[in-house]
Parts: sequence; structure tokens; C-alpha cells
Amino acid sequence: MRRKTKKIKVGNVFIGGNAPISVQSMVKADTRNVELTVKQIKELEKEGCEIIRVAVPDMEAAKKLGKIKKRINIPLVADIHFSAQLALEAIDQGVDKLRINPGNIKKEKIKEVVLKAKKHKVPIRIGINMGSLEKDILFKYGATEKAMVVSAMRHIKILEKYNFNQIIISLKSSDIKRTINAYRLLAKRVDYPLHIGITEAGTKFRGTIISSVGLGILLEEGIGDTLRVSLSDQSKEEVKVGWEILKSLNLRKKGVSITSCPTCGRTEIDLFKLVKQVEEIAKPIKKDLHIAVMGCVVNGPGEAREADLAIVGGKKNGLIIKKGKIIKMVPEKKLLVEFKRELKKM
Amino acid sequence: MRRKTKKIKVGNVFIGGNAPISVQSMVKADTRNVELTVKQIKELEKEGCEIIRVAVPDMEAAKKLGKIKKRINIPLVADIHFSAQLALEAIDQGVDKLRINPGNIKKEKIKEVVLKAKKHKVPIRIGINMGSLEKDILFKYGATEKAMVVSAMRHIKILEKYNFNQIIISLKSSDIKRTINAYRLLAKRVDYPLHIGITEAGTKFRGTIISSVGLGILLEEGIGDTLRVSLSDQSKEEVKVGWEILKSLNLRKKGVSITSCPTCGRTEIDLFKLVKQVEEIAKPIKKDLHIAVMGCVVNGPGEAREADLAIVGGKKNGLIIKKGKIIKMVPEKKLLVEFKRELKKM
Repeated sequence: MRRKTKKIKVGNVFIGGNAPISVQSMVKADTRNVELTVKQIKELEKEGCEIIRVAVPDMEAAKKLGKIKKRINIPLVADIHFSAQLALEAIDQGVDKLRINPGNIKKEKIKEVVLKAKKHKVPIRIGINMGSLEKDILFKYGATEKAMVVSAMRHIKILEKYNFNQIIISLKSSDIKRTINAYRLLAKRVDYPLHIGITEAGTKFRGTIISSVGLGILLEEGIGDTLRVSLSDQSKEEVKVGWEILKSLNLRKKGVSITSCPTCGRTEIDLFKLVKQVEEIAKPIKKDLHIAVMGCVVNGPGEAREADLAIVGGKKNGLIIKKGKIIKMVPEKKLLVEFKRELKKM
Repeated sequence: MRRKTKKIKVGNVFIGGNAPISVQSMVKADTRNVELTVKQIKELEKEGCEIIRVAVPDMEAAKKLGKIKKRINIPLVADIHFSAQLALEAIDQGVDKLRINPGNIKKEKIKEVVLKAKKHKVPIRIGINMGSLEKDILFKYGATEKAMVVSAMRHIKILEKYNFNQIIISLKSSDIKRTINAYRLLAKRVDYPLHIGITEAGTKFRGTIISSVGLGILLEEGIGDTLRVSLSDQSKEEVKVGWEILKSLNLRKKGVSITSCPTCGRTEIDLFKLVKQVEEIAKPIKKDLHIAVMGCVVNGPGEAREADLAIVGGKKNGLIIKKGKIIKMVPEKKLLVEFKRELKKM
């Protein structure tokens, strides 16, 4: 059961409540380079990125936000650290969300930011990172899940003081267990939607696994309203992994899913080649389809039963199975052609 | 808390009890080809594979098991379907474990297999697969988690009838939720160790994510004593992913772990290149080390605090941080050389 949360509007996307769990990413280009930033965002839109964040390290970057916003189709989030001036400018530039930790800004300044965000209906994500916790909290609680939650509550209270409740919270660390425990603790204390992610996850290989494990555990418990996978790789890889995590738990659907077997000493067809070919054919298909490519008759027909369309290999021959029914047996060489034909009919 | 289970001896490896959660794989070569099978197993041993399974589809394959066993260093498991003759031969050939579902073999025959396995101290894994469930169970329960557990209990009871308790059980399906729920149900009913895996997970990309999500959820709940990741790719990829899942939850240690940031518009060094270089340098290191490679000063120093050795990028310069202490600041060009020097000292 998904945790019940407030529903927050971020541009043309909702986060929380019954809204689909959205996939976010962050631009890796310098925000001051509008052309490159827009180019990267356009690519990410194609991959299914639903909310995009850019770093706003200085006023030059802040002044470019409006130009970027005008040329893209998904909500734009400004990532700001320590500066009220940049936050105020970002709101003026029309961003759809701020990522800023109010406790890091002077009292008299933060009031102005919060009231302006409220007036312009710009929600705020409080982004807690184990790597940048307040010194007094670190001293009292150490680098623990409790420390992250205490920090989050401190920032939340500043926003609530000004009756601001369009809040989203993230609690990231590079350690899965602490990250999970922090989200679990906070989930019991507030009903704001949660942005989930494992930070500094590493390269594509390690980062994909660590993010899948960490976000998978949270999502299965019903925690998480939007997610970002962090990889030391291109942002489009982050988006692909994010989608695949959501698809794996049947939380979202997107295009074709291919079940395929690992093969073993029983397999008598070139299954890996076949799977790659099927994958290529399936790439442009937008319809939600479940395809299975199986190597032998031990588990093949059983798994095929659950797929919309399946190939099951045998002794130099294969079966084409449609919605659980064997529709034809063909030689290995003709399997792909016949498969394509059936796929087209669907 | 890890679930309490019996401890089962499989060759020179233990499964269950307080034994480390082991990483398994399966050979993709034809078992009758001893040279190729042994070559693949040797490669897998190098990657950290701790138990290896081969398909035994016929008597020719069964007769080769002894030859394979003699030339490898990890326990050998014979994967057998429907045949008592093959199981008896596999035991004679000296395999360390059988994977066989006793309910699929005639009553008078299975008794002989079980008694022989008992005499030779060969444990048996009951491998339930959603794709090959008994027809009567499928008819009564449908393709559900309950059906898998009912099937498992039926096979378990046959072994227990002959006072055989060296049992390991797996409950695989290509659907994460059903797989997880099946393991949860069975974990409450028996105290045999569980072999976990998501079957027919697909290509490397999809299979890595689906396995990380599924196995991650189970392992975090304390379920799972040995695992196999199934990929439509080379077996060594399965072993790598299996290890990384265990490492992500701090359940096992193996070599260097690299934390690295995804970069953003704030990053002023070529971080991806640097991470790849650090990864290359770290590959041969057997010692358990935590390395961090961070792009900027927002979260960099905080994350670096937790690493044994870290690089934090800045404006064309970088810091080398050792166990939380800044030991030097160097220009970007010299970062890698200095990093190597410090790594060698460790």
C-alpha cells in the first residue's frame, strides 16, 4: 500500500497523493550554457524524464532559467544552496520548483523567499544529504539516519512557520541502509510527499544496482512519490534505470517488457542473439506489451503463458505463443520473421 | 535480522545458518563439452562464483560430471529434471548437490535417489519455478505465490518422509512481487535455507535491475542464504551483479567500493573520466576499501569523510582526503598521480 501524502503541483506534473511516481533527473551541463542545457533536457524528455533539475550556482545561471524554461516541456527545478538572492531570482524566472534548504539561509532572508514561493505557487523540496548535514546535528547524532531526520524536521518547521506546506523532502546518503531507515522514520512523522534517491551511487554498474536495491525496498514498502537515480554517467541512463525500477514493481508501465531466460546446457538455439534482435524490434513500440523469449521447454511454455507474445526455443525449432496459445512451430531461422509478423498484428 | 535456518554443507561451502550468503551461477555451455564447461567454471571462480550448477539433460552429460568436478575448485551442482537415473548417476559421479524436484519422479524411483543422496551426504535443492508448476496446483491456486509454496511443501514432504533434511529451496518466478511473497510465506513455514533468485529476468540491463530490486527486498528482510542472478548474458555478469547486491547491503565484502557523484552544473573537473581511471586502478586491489570521487564542495567533503581515501574536485584543483582528513590540495592534472601514491601506501 502506497503511503498517503499531500498532492503537490509542480508545473504540469503532480507529486504525491495518487499521482504516478515520477522519474526525475538533473542536467550535467553548466546551466549558464543555455543551448547545451536545453539540448540535454530535450534528450531526457525523449527518454521519459518527467521533471528536470538544474544547478544554480550563481546569478548568471539564475538569469538563464527563464530562457531554458521557455524551450522545454517538463517542469524545471532550480537547485540552490545558501543563497536567498538566487532563490528569489529563480522564482522571478518562472521555475516550477525550488530545491533549497531554508535552514541554510538567514532568517530575515528566508521569510522573503518563502512568501514569494507561496505567492507564485512554487513548491520547495528540502534536500537533506548526509554529506552536508548541519555541524551541531552531526555532533549530537553522528552520521546516522536520525541525524538526517532531525535536520529535515528543522527545515520543515521553518517553512511551516510561514504556513507554507507545498513541501517535498528527500533524505539521501550513499549508504542504502541509513537512507532507507531515514525515509522510514520521516514517513511516520509527516505526510509530505517524498523524493527518493541514493546519492553518490557511483558508476553505471554499481549505481544501477545500489539504486535498484535501495529504491526497490522503499517503493515496495509504499514509500516514494518521485525518484531520481544518481549515476556517474549520462543523465539519460539515470532516467532509463528509474523507469525500469518502477516497471519492475508494476508501479508504472512504459513500452515493451521482455522476459528472457539465462540459458543453460539445455538450450539449443542462439538465445542471446534472438533476445537482442527482439529487443531492437520492440524498442520503438509504445504499447505496453509483455514479451517472453525462452530457450527450452522446461520453463519456457509456462513463462510464455503469461506473456502477450512469446518465442520458446527447442531442437532447432521454436514455438510462437500468443496469449498462452501455441500458434505455430517454425524452424529457428524463421523464428524472428514470424515473430515480427505476429507482433505487427498486435 | 537474518532468518534462522539449518546449516547445509555443499562440498566445501556452507549454505544457511551463520554462513556467508553465497553467490552462485550456472554454466551456459553444453555439459557434454567438458573443456568448455571447465573453462567457463574457471572464469567464474575468478569472478567470485562460490557454487556452480550445470544442466544434466541426458546420460552423456551425467557421465561427464566426475571429470568436470575433478578440475574445478568450487562445489558442483547437477540440475536434473524428471529422471531418477540421471540423479543416481550424478551422485556416483561425486556431485556436491542435486537440484531436483522429487515430486516429478515416480515413487519407487525417488526413494532410491533420496536414500543414496543421504548415504553420500549430497543435499538436494527443490527448485520451484512458476513456469513449471504441477497442473493440479495451477488449476487450484492459479499462477500465484500460494501455488509455489504449496508445490514446495509437497516436494519437501517427500524428502522428509525418508528422514532427509539436507534441503535447500528456491521459489522463482519472473514477477518480483509474486516471488517475494512466495519466499515470505515459505520462510514462515520451514527452517531450511533458501536459494533466492528472480528467474527469466531478461537482458543485462533489465535483469540487473529486476534482480537487484527483488533480491534486495528479500535480503533486507533477512531472507536468502544463497543467491543466483539470472541474466540473458554471460554467467560472469551474473556473478558480478550478485556480489554487488550483497555489497550494497553490507552483507558481504569484496574489494574496493567506489562512491562517486553524478555531477551537475556545479562540477568543474572531468569527473566521469576520473572515476573510470580510479576504477581501473582499483580493480586489482583485493583489500576491502571504500573510495569516494566527488565533483564539488557541496556534498564532497561530507561524503569523503566516510571513505578510506577520497578525491574532491574544485575549481581546476582537487583535494585528497584520507580517513576524513585533507592531506593535500593538487591541480586537476596531478590528482590521479597523487591519488595512486596515497593508495599504494594503504
